[in-house]
Amino acid sequence: MLKRKKQNKVDPHIRSLIKIVGESEILYKPEDLISYDCDGFTVHKALPKAVVFPKNTEEVAALVRYCHMNHLPFLARGAGTGLSGGAIPLNEEIIISLVKMKQLLCVDYENRQAVVQPGYVNLKLTNSISDKGYYYAPDPSSQYVCTIGGNVAENAGGAHCLKYGVTTNHILGLEVVLPHGEVIQIGGEGAPDSPGYDLMGLLTGSEGTLGIVTKITVRILKSPQGKKTVLAYFDDVEEGSRAVSDIIAAGIVPAALEMMDKTAIEGVEAGTFPVGHPPDIEAFLLIEVDGIMAGLEEQIEQILEVCESWNVREVKVAKSEEERSRWWANRKTGFGAMGAISPDYLVQDGVIPRSRLPEVLKEIERISAESGLRIANIFHAGDGNLHPLILFDSRIPGETEKALQAGTACLKACADVGGSITGEHGVGIEKKEEMRFIFTEEEIEAQLDIRDVFNPYDLLNQGKLFPKPSRCMDVKKIVKDTVAVQS
Amino acid sequence: MLKRKKQNKVDPHIRSLIKIVGESEILYKPEDLISYDCDGFTVHKALPKAVVFPKNTEEVAALVRYCHMNHLPFLARGAGTGLSGGAIPLNEEIIISLVKMKQLLCVDYENRQAVVQPGYVNLKLTNSISDKGYYYAPDPSSQYVCTIGGNVAENAGGAHCLKYGVTTNHILGLEVVLPHGEVIQIGGEGAPDSPGYDLMGLLTGSEGTLGIVTKITVRILKSPQGKKTVLAYFDDVEEGSRAVSDIIAAGIVPAALEMMDKTAIEGVEAGTFPVGHPPDIEAFLLIEVDGIMAGLEEQIEQILEVCESWNVREVKVAKSEEERSRWWANRKTGFGAMGAISPDYLVQDGVIPRSRLPEVLKEIERISAESGLRIANIFHAGDGNLHPLILFDSRIPGETEKALQAGTACLKACADVGGSITGEHGVGIEKKEEMRFIFTEEEIEAQLDIRDVFNPYDLLNQGKLFPKPSRCMDVKKIVKDTVAVQS
Repeated sequence: MLKRKKQNKVDPHIRSLIKIVGESEILYKPEDLISYDCDGFTVHKALPKAVVFPKNTEEVAALVRYCHMNHLPFLARGAGTGLSGGAIPLNEEIIISLVKMKQLLCVDYENRQAVVQPGYVNLKLTNSISDKGYYYAPDPSSQYVCTIGGNVAENAGGAHCLKYGVTTNHILGLEVVLPHGEVIQIGGEGAPDSPGYDLMGLLTGSEGTLGIVTKITVRILKSPQGKKTVLAYFDDVEEGSRAVSDIIAAGIVPAALEMMDKTAIEGVEAGTFPVGHPPDIEAFLLIEVDGIMAGLEEQIEQILEVCESWNVREVKVAKSEEERSRWWANRKTGFGAMGAISPDYLVQDGVIPRSRLPEVLKEIERISAESGLRIANIFHAGDGNLHPLILFDSRIPGETEKALQAGTACLKACADVGGSITGEHGVGIEKKEEMRFIFTEEEIEAQLDIRDVFNPYDLLNQGKLFPKPSRCMDVKKIVKDTVAVQS
Repeated sequence: MLKRKKQNKVDPHIRSLIKIVGESEILYKPEDLISYDCDGFTVHKALPKAVVFPKNTEEVAALVRYCHMNHLPFLARGAGTGLSGGAIPLNEEIIISLVKMKQLLCVDYENRQAVVQPGYVNLKLTNSISDKGYYYAPDPSSQYVCTIGGNVAENAGGAHCLKYGVTTNHILGLEVVLPHGEVIQIGGEGAPDSPGYDLMGLLTGSEGTLGIVTKITVRILKSPQGKKTVLAYFDDVEEGSRAVSDIIAAGIVPAALEMMDKTAIEGVEAGTFPVGHPPDIEAFLLIEVDGIMAGLEEQIEQILEVCESWNVREVKVAKSEEERSRWWANRKTGFGAMGAISPDYLVQDGVIPRSRLPEVLKEIERISAESGLRIANIFHAGDGNLHPLILFDSRIPGETEKALQAGTACLKACADVGGSITGEHGVGIEKKEEMRFIFTEEEIEAQLDIRDVFNPYDLLNQGKLFPKPSRCMDVKKIVKDTVAVQS
């Protein structure tokens, strides 16, 4: 009797969800939910109502239909590596975790496609096809753990997106569960220009607000015949950034063109993969070219020449794949390594026209001085994607707020030179208000109208991606919809 | 008095439009409207109510507001080179011609961007910047006359989109007049992943149904250091297409990889730029690689090897820029040259997985035999974009209908192997019904919902891009919007 009574205490919604996914595939006790209170953006935390682990599209659709019919807020989650809080439950959401949908469903080498489930880990794809000489290009730093479903939601980039483009350039088709539970297929036929509206582009990077992706057809690429990697040390950040502009101006399209400043270098040298960068340099460039072997030598020569012309202190070409890998491991620990030199850090993510780097770096220095917080800079220099890393100590009262303010100021500096508030980490809850730096109310309203098409009750990932529209927009909307008779 | 009375006969809407653009910038007499009764899709013709020629964004916005307030259907038109009827007035539209907004507004070499008005001709951009060593990549065959605004509307491709991508990959920002007359800016900050929804991707290729683009920021590229072009003649189409697959499989990404079959070759040899292709070959491949000079020789060698392995009859590398240009001029007249061997022709545009080419060509042969019409094939072989050219004589009763049926059958053949009904020419009015070959009613409905957000009264480019939804969708929509209380 007692046992039965206990069972009855379980929320009826939870019982319904159990019917869909099975008892073993749901977490709902507070102690089990703690690991789901945030993603890689740890500033804000809140518990979901439950976390469910569907095994296939049908279960996802059934879960979504249930939430839709019962007006329960819900959201999808991959590996939880997102950096802008896109998977944080703000309204006691049901979290639909996709980590158990992790199959590589098919590889079609002849037509260069692979089909994966959303919970499939990014790097696993390359590992599965590399013996045949293929790879999957988008390579976010978290690629050894992040999922391709999450990559689609965030339109993830990576160090090599300069030459190869971001996730949206590598997605050929999607199966999507819409917020009312209907399943649609988009793209997939490999057309360079798919007929109708570009729903695939719309869904990709929509940060989980338009639908839940349950199957993904991606483009796979033939591994380049060769790669050459250069490490160049500069005594002056501005000279380093001038070298970046000149490399691009020379017509070279490097596969990657990364820059780190002194504080960032201090971090990676204190991290898991130090490589012995000189401690007193102001910046390094990590430059990689790939392609047909015969053309690489000439490109490397041109790169070295450009670096020399900007007074590079030292420049070296990786002598082996092992050395190249070490340099990249060192670079890829860039964010995490900040933990070695600071109790806490906040990653920011702005975009600037490449040519404006020196002045933006000066403004970031000013922000650093004003806030009293150190700021390291990691820069996907080739495409102008700047990551200021704001170092702080959350145990010191007020310092978290200071860090957040400094982050916002960095984004404002990017927007002020005609840049953007995010290059690859998304908006999530972190940068909702900063959307106003680059969009007018009308432009935000146009995007919200699109969200309403897919997600009319705003049950899917509520409170993400957009600031609350100002009151005056409601008035404007009425005006816009009023159709007068003859002017 | 008489004069005054005559003037009064002018439609009051026309008088209002004259107030906006001026008397000299409008056509409304039937005899002046005839050249606007169709675009490059000449099968369907209808007269607009008027054609107006705004000079700037403000005039476009005023025209659109006027149409919106007075419930007048309207559409935008560039050079009228579209091949699917996207600019044909079906409902006595006011045509907003953008050909007088044809300025190159700015070129920013350092950040590799240019800003153009929509009526600016595609090829002029490359011509304006080539002396500095830059070019604009998308190169539809009509590039010497088509406008970049039209390219955005259709997401135009071109022979070189295999390596460089279609128009959407080269657009960085848009100024858009929405269908109620509001002006918004999207993109433009050069972010690899612009925050919020990808409105730029959504607008690009929306075939003039979501808004009118009035300013375009495009990416410009550094001209490649070198180019090498190969012409390879095959006695067997299948062997030629196997060579295509093997070239791609070798990891080479040619800038262009084109194929023409025997009938297409007969056309171009009878056209404006014959180059002396052997009359008895079954197919040729035109293959171009570009990039750093040092790498090209090796790629060419690999390409020649692959061609030899598939029994190429003859293969040659262009010995001069002049020879290369002649080959391309010959190829680019491909569609128009059909006029030299047939009174009329219909261009089709399908996409297939590269590996399915031989079987699709067999099916097209069958369609040709069944219809009694010759069909030539021009193929962007690298990305699987097939253009069957259906030759017919509209003076023979019933032959136009036969040609249209054969075209539809070709598209069905593409869709049936997992391809698509358009690669780069768009849907327009030509392929509305064929959208059902690749989209379910739900998927079409999702797209119409998006159109309704931008274009709720369906005044802008009515009756294009989508088939009429079936009745059952209305019922479905009600079900979808019904939210039950607890399941």
